[in-house]
Amino acid sequence: MSDEGARLTELAKRRGFFLQSAGAYGGVSGFYTYGPQGATLKENLEDAWRDRYVTREGHMEISAPDVMPEAVFEASGHLDGFDDMIIECPECGASHRADHLVEDNTDIEEAESISTEEIAEIIAEHDLVCPDCGTELAGEPVEDFNLMFETNIGPGSSSPGYLRPETAQGIFVEFPQLAEYARNQLPFGVAQIGKAYRNEISPRKGLIRVREFTQAELEHFIDPEEDEPPLSRVEDVVLPLYSAEQQDAEDGGIRELTVREAIDEGVVTSDWVAFYLGLSTAWYERVGVDMDRFRYRQHLPGELAHYASDCWDAESELGGDWVEITGFAYRGDYDLKKHEEHSGEDFSVFKQYDEPVTVERPTVDPDMSVLGPEFGGDAAAVAAALEDLAERDPDAFDDDEVTVDVEGEAYTVDVEATGFGVEEVTESGEHVRPHVVEPSFGVGRLVYTVLAHAYAEDEVDGEERSYLSLPPEMAPTTVGVFPLMDRDGMGEEARDLASRLREAGLEVTYDDSGAIGRRYRRQDEIGTPFCVTVDYDTLGDGEGDGAQAGTVTVRERDSTEQRRVAIDELAGTLTALRDGDLTFEDL
Amino acid sequence: MSDEGARLTELAKRRGFFLQSAGAYGGVSGFYTYGPQGATLKENLEDAWRDRYVTREGHMEISAPDVMPEAVFEASGHLDGFDDMIIECPECGASHRADHLVEDNTDIEEAESISTEEIAEIIAEHDLVCPDCGTELAGEPVEDFNLMFETNIGPGSSSPGYLRPETAQGIFVEFPQLAEYARNQLPFGVAQIGKAYRNEISPRKGLIRVREFTQAELEHFIDPEEDEPPLSRVEDVVLPLYSAEQQDAEDGGIRELTVREAIDEGVVTSDWVAFYLGLSTAWYERVGVDMDRFRYRQHLPGELAHYASDCWDAESELGGDWVEITGFAYRGDYDLKKHEEHSGEDFSVFKQYDEPVTVERPTVDPDMSVLGPEFGGDAAAVAAALEDLAERDPDAFDDDEVTVDVEGEAYTVDVEATGFGVEEVTESGEHVRPHVVEPSFGVGRLVYTVLAHAYAEDEVDGEERSYLSLPPEMAPTTVGVFPLMDRDGMGEEARDLASRLREAGLEVTYDDSGAIGRRYRRQDEIGTPFCVTVDYDTLGDGEGDGAQAGTVTVRERDSTEQRRVAIDELAGTLTALRDGDLTFEDL
Repeated sequence: MSDEGARLTELAKRRGFFLQSAGAYGGVSGFYTYGPQGATLKENLEDAWRDRYVTREGHMEISAPDVMPEAVFEASGHLDGFDDMIIECPECGASHRADHLVEDNTDIEEAESISTEEIAEIIAEHDLVCPDCGTELAGEPVEDFNLMFETNIGPGSSSPGYLRPETAQGIFVEFPQLAEYARNQLPFGVAQIGKAYRNEISPRKGLIRVREFTQAELEHFIDPEEDEPPLSRVEDVVLPLYSAEQQDAEDGGIRELTVREAIDEGVVTSDWVAFYLGLSTAWYERVGVDMDRFRYRQHLPGELAHYASDCWDAESELGGDWVEITGFAYRGDYDLKKHEEHSGEDFSVFKQYDEPVTVERPTVDPDMSVLGPEFGGDAAAVAAALEDLAERDPDAFDDDEVTVDVEGEAYTVDVEATGFGVEEVTESGEHVRPHVVEPSFGVGRLVYTVLAHAYAEDEVDGEERSYLSLPPEMAPTTVGVFPLMDRDGMGEEARDLASRLREAGLEVTYDDSGAIGRRYRRQDEIGTPFCVTVDYDTLGDGEGDGAQAGTVTVRERDSTEQRRVAIDELAGTLTALRDGDLTFEDL
Repeated sequence: MSDEGARLTELAKRRGFFLQSAGAYGGVSGFYTYGPQGATLKENLEDAWRDRYVTREGHMEISAPDVMPEAVFEASGHLDGFDDMIIECPECGASHRADHLVEDNTDIEEAESISTEEIAEIIAEHDLVCPDCGTELAGEPVEDFNLMFETNIGPGSSSPGYLRPETAQGIFVEFPQLAEYARNQLPFGVAQIGKAYRNEISPRKGLIRVREFTQAELEHFIDPEEDEPPLSRVEDVVLPLYSAEQQDAEDGGIRELTVREAIDEGVVTSDWVAFYLGLSTAWYERVGVDMDRFRYRQHLPGELAHYASDCWDAESELGGDWVEITGFAYRGDYDLKKHEEHSGEDFSVFKQYDEPVTVERPTVDPDMSVLGPEFGGDAAAVAAALEDLAERDPDAFDDDEVTVDVEGEAYTVDVEATGFGVEEVTESGEHVRPHVVEPSFGVGRLVYTVLAHAYAEDEVDGEERSYLSLPPEMAPTTVGVFPLMDRDGMGEEARDLASRLREAGLEVTYDDSGAIGRRYRRQDEIGTPFCVTVDYDTLGDGEGDGAQAGTVTVRERDSTEQRRVAIDELAGTLTALRDGDLTFEDL
């Protein structure tokens, strides 16, 4: 772990952002509990996501179960293909990710895309050893390990269930019903914020690589032939792009292009993906990502998921590493097609034409009183074969007789007995299987990014201080309320004020213990943007002329500047400050 | 399923509240997906819960993982005791809850509290058969079936994990850290909203009995000897109580008592439970529970959970049945004690005395230069025995010599060589293991209750109509925006208006298809409290004098009354209506 990581993890535990779960029992790798500050920060992030990607875009949001039946993952491909490479130490029994072992101990990169057999050979060639006990691993088998958590639904083992590895499948599998809710009008978007689970072999990166995490995913279903994204809304947004080409180049770095330029130059090949990169940039800034430690990185051809045709990751810089915080993928119709094939249900929408279209359609209406006696038990099969033929090759009915093949045998029928004809059919529309554009956010990694990027140190009154420069909208606590001291009625007044601010829907902490400076530091460390102090002046007992009676001090976190505000206006003022409708400078 | 249940389930699927998951693959009992309306209604309920039980009370909220290691449930008792009785049909292989089989087919009630052996006898005596295939079940074994979903964490099966059966354990297990966040000051509350899982044997009650559900739980940690609930806030609240005594009485019904009366009469024995019943009553009403179909029912003595000393359920009437929607339990120190025993960690808080207390403490300081030569290898054990004795029975040091027993052998020592003395020790506090008061809400059942209780039918303009009379705060969509027709600029104006209302944070649906009356009905059916129509008058093209230019019609759902509101004021007006700061009558 980097210095930044270690410092943040310590702060996170001490101040209630996150900690490894079940520490009393030694903890389990890859499972974290969000403490009071972290849970609220995470909630605030989710609310901001919902505001941006659901409410303001007019999309739907659903909530599907975490446990899903096997058939879903047979169709989605996760049952067969959602694997990591595992190697077990013959001595100590520890399991390791074989590709990580190779990457960490050789010059080889992207070992994930190498076959298990080759990885085993590389391990032998390089004399790689178990990182835990030092035993040589040459000759040990490298195997595929499925990353889904498996369980049984109901008694016995006849109904296996899996913890979903992505929230997306909970949306795809309900597509037929969702399309009805959208009244079969493309495009429409369906979002979900929920848990996903990956049984990582040996997760070791704190909150960055966990076995249980929260995703915020939007599946935007579009008609690939007709629907265009509303690019005019975002075309001037500047994107920090790290394309596949730049990654391959000797001295390739981030290129800043507007959405329009990125499309025109063919850097981002999907207009829809470009739209979402444009839409998201301002959102990252809003929630507190440091845009100087942020980029969009294109997947390299070997890195693309089985379903994706173009994919960009939003990445944030954390302790010197670039970490994916969002994937923007064009998934095509892969998932809907698979579910349609596996379930036999219709996973398309019926697209109404503006005007009904009249088409000619060849039909047959076989005379069974002729076919029956002639072909006996095969008559129905012959009739079906005639129907197929009429659709496929109507010209075959031009002669007096027509011959069809049923299971290798030829049957000849008088055309008259087939009832062949051409009907005019009016069609009001057609079935379209939508394509899917998917922005998929990792909420935990965003929480971590926002914390890491908010961390700051400075000096106040000659003392070092560390604080979290979180946007007020994100901060777990909006306001700390203090009495100067808990005496002469200031404690009562401050407690009463805290409770009124809570009634107004603000996140409030009351604190009367220790020196006021120490209380400020405590709030600074959890990123509370505003602190309110009740003092003698508030009560009209100050040394001044009493003009400050009924007012309190409001202190801003980053600048440490203070203003006096009337108690009556406090809830409204703080709400406006939190919501960005007012700045502290304007006070 | 009752008529009400069937009607609601149909409406729920058709209009996007909830549906059985993975229907394309035949569905799996006990798993439901919340559609766009249901997910938002559920979210609104959770927000209202958080507002009431976390923000306004100043409690903490955390978010722990769903998958937890075995040690947690060994300690909590779930691994051994969290069972239902199962019986398997020897013919068709179907599994059934043996106690339900008995309850459904005999006069026996509360079969859950009968032993598996007795249940097996009852099944044989009554010739009970498999409900699926009719095969006699006499002689088939009745067994305990653990209701936790089991999985493996990491490769292999050496690290079993379980999906938590209640969110509470995620809080209890982190108590040592949580107490630090509360700076060891009791009382403090820790809340969590999250998934819980119970692998029901054969769930058959729609959204009422599911295998995966959302709980909103508050664990309020109190000092049992000192902390009193703030009863003055709720003492006049009237509670509809169905006590154990009333349940036993011949003609017992609900008794309405104030919180104060319920405590004074000893009906509710825990002041803390009484406080939460009082606090919650107004909340149920706020979120749309019909208080004429609501009661608090006390658990009968045989029904109490292993950890609870008094427990009341909030129940709502649904299709003629009473269904638990919240459990209010006094859990004592059961959970913290168990986790302390199993983990060996400290699950108490250190309670600081107001003033340090000075106590006399006997001590020894054995002279090893005497004991060593005299007792050789046993000297250390003798010294330890002296220390024990001094603490236990200081009077034993009154004589010249003192005798201790070490593994059955007596050792006599000169008191002078023991260094016995009495020290004055100043203690600043003591360790207290808190008790826990727990209101535990089932969010899905609340969603179902709110929908069922909101369902209404009436006649409008001579046509029958059904609608959901949801509180505006709960409604999934706050406002439907319609153009009178999508022509002459009304469509553009309405779409523009919809998008501005979304920007203002309102949940908006735009609809321009079909007659305006039909669009109203559609919104009525999902409980949208307000519909806004852009008409010719809005554009200044109406037949009037143009005074209505720039205004729209706002129509209220239940009364179907309409008012004209200026577009400029619309977002503010609708927000105030939603938040209860304004009533439609005042418009």
